[in-house]
Amino acid sequence: MNLAKSILEGDPLALARLLTRVENDDPRAKEEMDVLFTHTGKAHLVGITGSPGTGKSSLVNQLAKAVRKEENSPKVAIVAVDPTSPFTGGAILGDRIRMRDLHGADGIFIRSMASRGAMGGIARTTAAMVQVLDAAGFGMILIETVGAGQAEVDIASLAHTTIVVEAPGLGDDIQAIKAGILEIADILVINKADLPGVENAERVLRMSIELAHPELEGEGSQGWIVPVLKTQSHLGIGIEEVVNAVRAHGDFLNQTGEWKKRDENRLKSELQKLIEQRLMKHWWNGVDEKRYQKLVQDILKRRISPYQAVEELVR
Amino acid sequence: MNLAKSILEGDPLALARLLTRVENDDPRAKEEMDVLFTHTGKAHLVGITGSPGTGKSSLVNQLAKAVRKEENSPKVAIVAVDPTSPFTGGAILGDRIRMRDLHGADGIFIRSMASRGAMGGIARTTAAMVQVLDAAGFGMILIETVGAGQAEVDIASLAHTTIVVEAPGLGDDIQAIKAGILEIADILVINKADLPGVENAERVLRMSIELAHPELEGEGSQGWIVPVLKTQSHLGIGIEEVVNAVRAHGDFLNQTGEWKKRDENRLKSELQKLIEQRLMKHWWNGVDEKRYQKLVQDILKRRISPYQAVEELVR
Repeated sequence: MNLAKSILEGDPLALARLLTRVENDDPRAKEEMDVLFTHTGKAHLVGITGSPGTGKSSLVNQLAKAVRKEENSPKVAIVAVDPTSPFTGGAILGDRIRMRDLHGADGIFIRSMASRGAMGGIARTTAAMVQVLDAAGFGMILIETVGAGQAEVDIASLAHTTIVVEAPGLGDDIQAIKAGILEIADILVINKADLPGVENAERVLRMSIELAHPELEGEGSQGWIVPVLKTQSHLGIGIEEVVNAVRAHGDFLNQTGEWKKRDENRLKSELQKLIEQRLMKHWWNGVDEKRYQKLVQDILKRRISPYQAVEELVR
Repeated sequence: MNLAKSILEGDPLALARLLTRVENDDPRAKEEMDVLFTHTGKAHLVGITGSPGTGKSSLVNQLAKAVRKEENSPKVAIVAVDPTSPFTGGAILGDRIRMRDLHGADGIFIRSMASRGAMGGIARTTAAMVQVLDAAGFGMILIETVGAGQAEVDIASLAHTTIVVEAPGLGDDIQAIKAGILEIADILVINKADLPGVENAERVLRMSIELAHPELEGEGSQGWIVPVLKTQSHLGIGIEEVVNAVRAHGDFLNQTGEWKKRDENRLKSELQKLIEQRLMKHWWNGVDEKRYQKLVQDILKRRISPYQAVEELVR
């Protein structure tokens, strides 16, 4: 429990070490996590998702810096996840460049995760890392992902507030792909708003948002209206408005009881997954290996269906 | 078992009815599936994945027609899956247009699935539908998906042969997104090869393929070298070459024993998922509901961690 204690006392080395253990699925992390978990639940978790080319990383850096400039600002952590890249070498270099950009910005912690194993695994590891950072006293945690599928949806379900980042000129086809991503947006940002095509992008996105959130039509102030904001992150333009929208969304969640509800859903689904894992492990330990192999062979030879095999195996 | 028997006798109405039951997760489908499963394992399953805008659907139609023109050609089925679209109304209209295009092309069956529930659910339903079509005597089944994430990877893992469709001019950013998709490609097709930028697209894709399949370097004829083919599906140009590549890949899989291995992996992972489902169902039926709710509350109040709750719940 040494690491957990040191982390709660604010030791950055202990923090880095435990995050590495969590990322490597080191069994020693478990006990520390039990201790730290009881200190979680305070951070505002903000997911930021967007394709490469939208300038998402630079936007995240700017957001972190803007939050730190506020009075009584919380410590900010950035967790950057890139589950789509099979070429992982870039992550560390990317961090160095980003850290240089954040140099001197006290109270901002950055950590990136390269691709490892299955996407479900990444979502789980990210959840655990976020819990560590939450316990370590980071009041706002920015979880940055490349918007390309189920992994993003899983990771977004971690967050209280999800920002989807777009850029002009990525084409209508791309917008169509992202229909699923828009459904999870609480705030929509069009970055690189100085590029041509920004009006068209804004029009398409507003239309898509309306389609993706039909329940909000005419509800007025009862529901959350997804704001569409324009930024130029390389010049710092529009950043303050995004920070304000994040704060406003946090307030909205608190006032409507939605914050607590999202928290509950997240922890319940985490519990479910852990139970599933545990049940499978128990079952594997108790299974008659020979009988299992025999049934697998019967399936491969098409003598019985997988459904029938399950009837035999699980009673 | 009436439907299964009729399907094995070639009744198209029974086929359509069972596919609907499978899609709706109708429990009556289960018994029929047990019967049909013993007749599966004959079809060549070909996955085709690509973004909207690549002309993938028209390519799939052309492939089906080209296969049907061969001597002793198998019956061909198309299963079109679009897990990314939350707006499902288009699917039926899309089918009508495609069926008109395929009009008079005897022996081609087409079925599309709109988005329902979780992505994992879609992969499972697709697998079941493919089993039904396999048993029904379709010798080649084309499984068409929009390339946008984990669902595609899951569905591709169904297939013996996976074709990834690209088009020129979708930008380098897009190529980067698709790095994960390229890893699953057995055949790469650049459709719309009359558009400007085709040379650049080809160059980027060949480079990406080399990065994604480093194990093949210098292996010569031992491994499968992913061919990069150019087509103009609206004019039927290059289609024959794609059909030949699909056949060649099928032969390669058979000769190397890889066909059997993919078949085994697929059925084993299907069995695993069914066992998981069953275990969770059993566990839920036996759980002390009050105790479970109490532990959930303890987690929400951060008194215990989810890991500790699992220790309590599963012994």
